[in-house]
Amino acid sequence: MQKIDDGRRLTRQVMVGDVAVGGGAPVSVQSMCTTDTSDSDATLSQIKRLAEEGCEIIRVAVPDPSALDGFERICAASPLPVVADIHFDYKLAIAAAERGAAALRVNPGNIGSMDRVDAVIEAASVAGIPIRIGVNAGSLDPEVAQKPGLTLVERLVASCVSFVEHFEERGFQNIVLSAKAHSVPVTIQTYRMLSKQLPDYPLHVGVTEAGTLQQGTVKNCAAVGVLLNEGIGDTMRLSLTADPVEEVRVAWELLGALGLRRRNPELVSCPTCGRTQVDLIGMAQEVERRLKSIQAPISVAVMGCVVNGPGEARDADIGIACGRGKGVIFVQGEPLRTVREEQLVDELFSEIQKRFG
Amino acid sequence: MQKIDDGRRLTRQVMVGDVAVGGGAPVSVQSMCTTDTSDSDATLSQIKRLAEEGCEIIRVAVPDPSALDGFERICAASPLPVVADIHFDYKLAIAAAERGAAALRVNPGNIGSMDRVDAVIEAASVAGIPIRIGVNAGSLDPEVAQKPGLTLVERLVASCVSFVEHFEERGFQNIVLSAKAHSVPVTIQTYRMLSKQLPDYPLHVGVTEAGTLQQGTVKNCAAVGVLLNEGIGDTMRLSLTADPVEEVRVAWELLGALGLRRRNPELVSCPTCGRTQVDLIGMAQEVERRLKSIQAPISVAVMGCVVNGPGEARDADIGIACGRGKGVIFVQGEPLRTVREEQLVDELFSEIQKRFG
Repeated sequence: MQKIDDGRRLTRQVMVGDVAVGGGAPVSVQSMCTTDTSDSDATLSQIKRLAEEGCEIIRVAVPDPSALDGFERICAASPLPVVADIHFDYKLAIAAAERGAAALRVNPGNIGSMDRVDAVIEAASVAGIPIRIGVNAGSLDPEVAQKPGLTLVERLVASCVSFVEHFEERGFQNIVLSAKAHSVPVTIQTYRMLSKQLPDYPLHVGVTEAGTLQQGTVKNCAAVGVLLNEGIGDTMRLSLTADPVEEVRVAWELLGALGLRRRNPELVSCPTCGRTQVDLIGMAQEVERRLKSIQAPISVAVMGCVVNGPGEARDADIGIACGRGKGVIFVQGEPLRTVREEQLVDELFSEIQKRFG
Repeated sequence: MQKIDDGRRLTRQVMVGDVAVGGGAPVSVQSMCTTDTSDSDATLSQIKRLAEEGCEIIRVAVPDPSALDGFERICAASPLPVVADIHFDYKLAIAAAERGAAALRVNPGNIGSMDRVDAVIEAASVAGIPIRIGVNAGSLDPEVAQKPGLTLVERLVASCVSFVEHFEERGFQNIVLSAKAHSVPVTIQTYRMLSKQLPDYPLHVGVTEAGTLQQGTVKNCAAVGVLLNEGIGDTMRLSLTADPVEEVRVAWELLGALGLRRRNPELVSCPTCGRTQVDLIGMAQEVERRLKSIQAPISVAVMGCVVNGPGEARDADIGIACGRGKGVIFVQGEPLRTVREEQLVDELFSEIQKRFG
């Protein structure tokens, strides 16, 4: 398997609108609208909020023919490439390709027959758009699903392999692959096996049905963290049962934490302990809140005491290390000045604005 | 390197009070009090809250001699083994060992001289308690810190190796090791190298100064997720700038997600999309809230539509799959009955109570 500079697996490159996926492109961040697709105004307004948070590809459901007009309006006005999410009805996939989809997401396992899948492939070829083959544990290739003696991981991978072979036989390789499960170990093992068996195709990674904000964040970061750390994964969608804006925030936090991409400032803050003599949790939350309006990929430290503070805050681009009722502002390793606790956050941000704003 | 059944690295076993760490013991969950140690009532009340959430080892700061009386009261009454967190003053470590600490956490790099470290080793030997050698990026072995040409990872590991050699020369091997940084890649590389160079000692894993609840959860789950997935890590503390109860909750979520240990029910819920015809986010949050009072390690599904719902909810011990204004309750793969949306959560919990309560 070929690898690129940062240790990531080198796949073919697929274009979703103007966003490159795979083939050395940065790992892109996706989400999915929770609005009614027929309500194109509400959907476009959600897409704009998501784009502001750094979402790069958006998916919307096309559940029935009545959604197609809304879908077309969304594609025409969206600032992000729009992927049509189709289940069951191949005619919806064809219509979505004709009405402006930047990509189709289909699960060939629930489209019905392979003739119908072929019609979808034909429509995508004509429109010049990629197809994400999105298998998941709940809807496998019917033939594979019935084979005895296979583990869920093997079933997921075998479904993908069987679908990809079918697409390749029709000369269609403009493919992104996903095979999602809600179990972290199953997700990790499935994508490892996929990246071995189908090394040429970009992988869309994520945990499905991961749960609410806290549990879903844990599951997605564990699974996708392991995979990205091994160089597996070209685009990601971290499913959360929450406002999709949170999916985008968590995705960027994860990319930043792994050192793959950084969009926003990083906050380094100590966990506080019996030594802390200032309201550090309050201070860190306030710094985090104000950092949301800063776009520079800087590292900002909020440290509670003299034990780790001075040593570790120096690591950051800018930081504060607190003592009793006062603190020191550091800038790129050098103490700048001592400030009273009440003014510490304000002074920190006037320095951030001056230097990185 | 020897591995045990579940692929985890086999180390020597160290006892922190009655909690075994390493040597095949389950990965234990730690946290640290944020209360003033002198205020033993407040600290004990925090420890009780943490114990109820599943914390198994608790650390408290002993910042100065005035904290020692409170520390002794805490050790005498705590339901969890208490680790004394000591910096700078070796006399505090000796006093803590004499007054009931279940373990000492020291960073030999900030104790002053190795003679003083020897006095701490002697006190721990007499008390029969282990020492966690806790190196972190802000306070390395002074000799190692000044060596040119080493990366931070190499400095962290070299500090540990040098300290461990010193302890072993004095015949002391009742050791747990940690080497923390706030960077996820540095944390991963450091613990991988530690587990190769010092394979015999249990490792305490975590990211330090990880940040507030959301960012800290992402960083800890990415780093500790990768490490635990590779079989590295015997006890964990996920530092968050938040109520320490959150550290314990996230730690258990992570252990559950990785399939290592499960304490609480798992919620499998879909992310909702344009197909969803019920208030699924509200429903999932309500189910999550009510599940906090259930201790059985069951898997509960809350699914929004017919696409993935029936297929994936069958995976769970019990679940609901929703349609328009109503839903189906599944129990271990079998549909039980159809219920109106308003009664779905109540009916789900009456089934949970009946079967797993």
